[in-house]
Amino acid sequence: MVLALPESASLARRVSDLAGMPLSAVESRQFPDDETYLRIDAECTGKSVVLVCTLDHPNQKTLPLLFLADAARALGARRVGLVTPYLAYLRQDRQFRAGEAVTSRTFARLLSGYVDWIVTIDPHLHRYGSLNEIYGVPSRVIHAAPVVAAWIAEHVERPVLVGPDVESAQWVTDVASRVGAPSVVMRKERSSDQVVKVSAPDMEAYRQHTPVIIDDVVSSGHTLIETVKCLVSAGLRAPVCMAVHALFSKEAEQALSNAGTAGIVTSNSVPHSTNMIDVVPLMIPAVLELC
Amino acid sequence: MVLALPESASLARRVSDLAGMPLSAVESRQFPDDETYLRIDAECTGKSVVLVCTLDHPNQKTLPLLFLADAARALGARRVGLVTPYLAYLRQDRQFRAGEAVTSRTFARLLSGYVDWIVTIDPHLHRYGSLNEIYGVPSRVIHAAPVVAAWIAEHVERPVLVGPDVESAQWVTDVASRVGAPSVVMRKERSSDQVVKVSAPDMEAYRQHTPVIIDDVVSSGHTLIETVKCLVSAGLRAPVCMAVHALFSKEAEQALSNAGTAGIVTSNSVPHSTNMIDVVPLMIPAVLELC
Repeated sequence: MVLALPESASLARRVSDLAGMPLSAVESRQFPDDETYLRIDAECTGKSVVLVCTLDHPNQKTLPLLFLADAARALGARRVGLVTPYLAYLRQDRQFRAGEAVTSRTFARLLSGYVDWIVTIDPHLHRYGSLNEIYGVPSRVIHAAPVVAAWIAEHVERPVLVGPDVESAQWVTDVASRVGAPSVVMRKERSSDQVVKVSAPDMEAYRQHTPVIIDDVVSSGHTLIETVKCLVSAGLRAPVCMAVHALFSKEAEQALSNAGTAGIVTSNSVPHSTNMIDVVPLMIPAVLELC
Repeated sequence: MVLALPESASLARRVSDLAGMPLSAVESRQFPDDETYLRIDAECTGKSVVLVCTLDHPNQKTLPLLFLADAARALGARRVGLVTPYLAYLRQDRQFRAGEAVTSRTFARLLSGYVDWIVTIDPHLHRYGSLNEIYGVPSRVIHAAPVVAAWIAEHVERPVLVGPDVESAQWVTDVASRVGAPSVVMRKERSSDQVVKVSAPDMEAYRQHTPVIIDDVVSSGHTLIETVKCLVSAGLRAPVCMAVHALFSKEAEQALSNAGTAGIVTSNSVPHSTNMIDVVPLMIPAVLELC
């Protein structure tokens, strides 16, 4: 059976439909003092429960998620797994300065204490080789590259794929080879969370192409904005921006539009008005394997 | 050493001053995607760390609190305790309807996994006899009654203490005996989170007294508002409202004022403009005992 908190209701419906597992209702509301009330309106005894909760805005969502997992277990669930298309708290993967909280480890250990398995899409793994280094439960990592490539192949004429930084190189090359398109990678210098400087390699050969910038996460949008500006000022066509996880605000979307993007395309790993790519089907085999 | 998240900085300073323990800085900020960055700017190795974090708005505060506790331990702290003047998630102490998450148990088990001890003020214990029923670590419960009584004795002439419901009877009687004042208890019927009906016993004898309504928590304010209205319409003087834990919004404060209260007085267990009673000194002996 599938259960979800209200914010992930549409993702849960899709998981339920595609996996052929019933979606059970979760009653949820906030008390006047901001505590959460939760009630699972279904028999859990002996069931394998699939929780669906994408983890953008994780501070607010995590405690209700733990309540839901614990409630399912208290009600007799045999197994409790988590489908979290966007998995939070992976960036701080070491102490860059003495005294820093390595939140990725704490968050991983926390979640691992409440669920039996995890399925997610393109987690932001940088210094960790895999989720197994920090998560104590089995996980399956699904890559959105095939559906991202399919979208580009269908919607963009003569694309040139653009990675905004070296971290994105491997992922951009993978998508480019699936599309059968060329790719380039920008040079990025980040001086803070907010300030990013991007410079382009020689793009002369791609004046008749449509640049498609792809990244795993958009949050502040600064990296994409600078990349768009850089390509536009190099005389290229208006670039399409693609990201798997849409963590960005209305302001960032507007700023991207002002910078000259031809459009923003994201996956539905995080509900957002720019969602155009469905990643849920990719997760279903892993869900059926682990549940 | 004392550590705190920014929201509890003033409480932490007071704990530090009164306990004679140094207050160390915690660097904290939100990333654009709403994840929390934390850094403890002090040597923790071998130290007994006292975290100060009052738990109003618990969904947002809990994850950063767990990060801070885990970071202190990862940095070598010998012991990590929690001073939480207001402890959240105690109301849902059983399943009132099948399928409900008993959040008090989940929250207690969660916190108990991250801290070695807890000191709190007047937790909302109803069906639990003590925190030990659900918390797996030692705790000390401090009662605000002595300082509440002292405030009334000093500031209110001819007080009559009023408990808004039978749950408050024991607490009101205790404060009344400390003040040497009479007390009455109202009859409350609650038909939902929002709707409360209150009726008064015969108050004829108290026409020359100032009613002082006391409760442990104010959140929506509905109970206090109805109690104030009831007393005012019975022809009594404008009542003073007192509560230990100020979880109420500006709107509730305004509504209480409109209902005819002479003033609202709360303790500093939760920072609020109505704070007039300092409960921190009451906690210090327990902190020094457990740390």
